[in-house]
Amino acid sequence: MHPLPPRRSFSVFVPPSALDGGPPAPVLIFLSGLTCTDANATEKGGAQRAAAAARVALAFPDTSPRGPGVPDDPAGGWDFGLGAGFYVDAAVPPFDSHYRMEAYVTADLPAALASVPGLDATRLALAGHSMGGHGALTLALKHPSLFRSASALAPICAPARCPWGVKALTGYLGRDVAAADGSGRAWDRADATRLAAAYAGPPRHLLVDVGTADEFLEEQLLPGALEDAVRGRGGWVGAESDGAPPAGAAAPLSLTLTRRPGYDHSYFFISTFIDAHVRHAAQALLKEAE
Amino acid sequence: MHPLPPRRSFSVFVPPSALDGGPPAPVLIFLSGLTCTDANATEKGGAQRAAAAARVALAFPDTSPRGPGVPDDPAGGWDFGLGAGFYVDAAVPPFDSHYRMEAYVTADLPAALASVPGLDATRLALAGHSMGGHGALTLALKHPSLFRSASALAPICAPARCPWGVKALTGYLGRDVAAADGSGRAWDRADATRLAAAYAGPPRHLLVDVGTADEFLEEQLLPGALEDAVRGRGGWVGAESDGAPPAGAAAPLSLTLTRRPGYDHSYFFISTFIDAHVRHAAQALLKEAE
Repeated sequence: MHPLPPRRSFSVFVPPSALDGGPPAPVLIFLSGLTCTDANATEKGGAQRAAAAARVALAFPDTSPRGPGVPDDPAGGWDFGLGAGFYVDAAVPPFDSHYRMEAYVTADLPAALASVPGLDATRLALAGHSMGGHGALTLALKHPSLFRSASALAPICAPARCPWGVKALTGYLGRDVAAADGSGRAWDRADATRLAAAYAGPPRHLLVDVGTADEFLEEQLLPGALEDAVRGRGGWVGAESDGAPPAGAAAPLSLTLTRRPGYDHSYFFISTFIDAHVRHAAQALLKEAE
Repeated sequence: MHPLPPRRSFSVFVPPSALDGGPPAPVLIFLSGLTCTDANATEKGGAQRAAAAARVALAFPDTSPRGPGVPDDPAGGWDFGLGAGFYVDAAVPPFDSHYRMEAYVTADLPAALASVPGLDATRLALAGHSMGGHGALTLALKHPSLFRSASALAPICAPARCPWGVKALTGYLGRDVAAADGSGRAWDRADATRLAAAYAGPPRHLLVDVGTADEFLEEQLLPGALEDAVRGRGGWVGAESDGAPPAGAAAPLSLTLTRRPGYDHSYFFISTFIDAHVRHAAQALLKEAE
C-alpha cells in the first residue's frame, strides 16, 4: 500500500525568457541535503541568476515526505527520516508507505512540473548537494533516458561505505544482501560509485565539486571512490583546470572533479560554485534532440 | 547610564584580495531590515561575489541589541524593540539604556572592525534594506565624514510619515516636537527625507532601488518623498537607464532611483540588485583620498 504523502512542497524558478509566451524552459531539479526543505537552496543557493542567463528553469523539491502520519527516525536523529529521505524508495516498514523519494523525483515531480506554465518538463537534469548530490548522481545514472545531465556539490559518493549512507540504506532498504526475489542487491542501485562501475547507458559527463575543508569529506563523502569507479571504466577524470574531456572518448562516463581549497560544506560553498552546475545542465538541456 | 548591551553579533566578509598580506579592504556596512539578525543578509543577500570582485569587505551588524535585560516591544510587535532598533539612539526609558544603534554603527562597530585582519575601517560606506535602508541613508547624511557612500534597497524613506516609522520614532525618541534643551526636533535627524532637505555636507550621489510589487511601497517606503527632497535642493534625479548624474552639478545631493517592475520586498529582490550597490560603494571607497 502506497498512500500519497500528506504534503510535498517544492518551489520553482521560471526564467524571464519563458515568461510572456517565450519558449518553455527545460528544468534543472536541485536535490538538497540532510535537514533541508525546499526552501534552503531556493533562498541561499543563488542559482537563479545563472538559470535566468542560461534560460533554464529550476525546481527545488523537499528532502522527505512531511506531515501527520509520516514516520521519523525512531532514534531521533537528523540523518534519517524527516529531512533525510535519501532519494530511495523504502522497502522497510513503516517507511515504505511514505518514503518513496525516487518515485517522487522521477515521476510525481515531473508530472507536477508539466503543469507549471513556462516549463518543458520533458527536458530534465539533476544537480544536488551532499545527500542531494548522492540523489542526483544515483537517479541520473539509473534513469538516463529521463535525466540528460547530472552534477553534484559535496555529494555522498559511496553511501554503502559511509556512516550516513549505511544507516539510511539499512533503514530504508534493509541489509546489503541480495533480495529473496532474485532482483539483486538493492544497495547496488542506491550508490553512485556502484552504479558508475556498472553503468551502460548513453555517455555522461559528470561534474562534481568538493571543498578541501569540508568537515564530512573523508568520513562521509568519499569522492575518491567515485573517481576510481569512473577510471575503472576507462573514463577520463580531471579537474576544472584540465578543461573538457577529450572528444570521442569511448568510455560511458567521464568526470570533472574539482577540489576547492578551503571551502567547507555550507551554502556559501554552494552559492560560490553553483553557476557552473547550472551551465553544465544547460549545455545538455539546450542541445538539439539527442 | 548606558551599559554595554549583553550581545552584539556581526559577521564580516573579507575579500580574497585582502587575505595573505594583500592590501586591507575598505568596508561596506550593510544594515538589515525589520526582524533580521546579522545572518539574513549574510546568507541570503548574495553580496559576497561582487564584493570579492570589487575588493571591498562587507560587514553585517544585527538590527538591535539582544540578550537578557534588553527590553522588547511591550505590545509584542515585530516592528519595534528586538530586531527593530531603527538605527537611532533611544532617548525614552527603558529603551535608552540599550537601544543605541546609531552609536553602535558609527562608533562601536567601526572600532570592532578595525581589529579584524584585512580590513581598513577608516574607509566605510553604508547600504541597507527597508529599515536598514533608512539607517544607511540617515546615518550617511548625518555623518558624511565617516561614511563615503550610501545606497538602499526598498528603504523607509520618510519614517516621520509612515506607520512603522511613527511607531518607532515615538517609542525611541518621543513625540515629534522640539526638545526642551533647544536642540531642535530629534525626528529631523532620524528621517532621510528631512535630512536630505537640510543636507549641507560634501556632494553625495545616493543609489536607491525599489520593487513596484513591494507590498510596503505605498504605505511604508515612500520613495517619492526622498525624490522630492533631492529635487527640492536642485539635485539631479534619474533612473538607472538615465545613466550617471551630469558632472559638475552644484547641488549637494543627486539620486539614482530605479523602480524595478514586479519585484517585491524579499531577499530575492536584494540578491538580484545587490551587485550595483556593492559597486556604488566601491567607487567611492576606492577613489583616491578625498
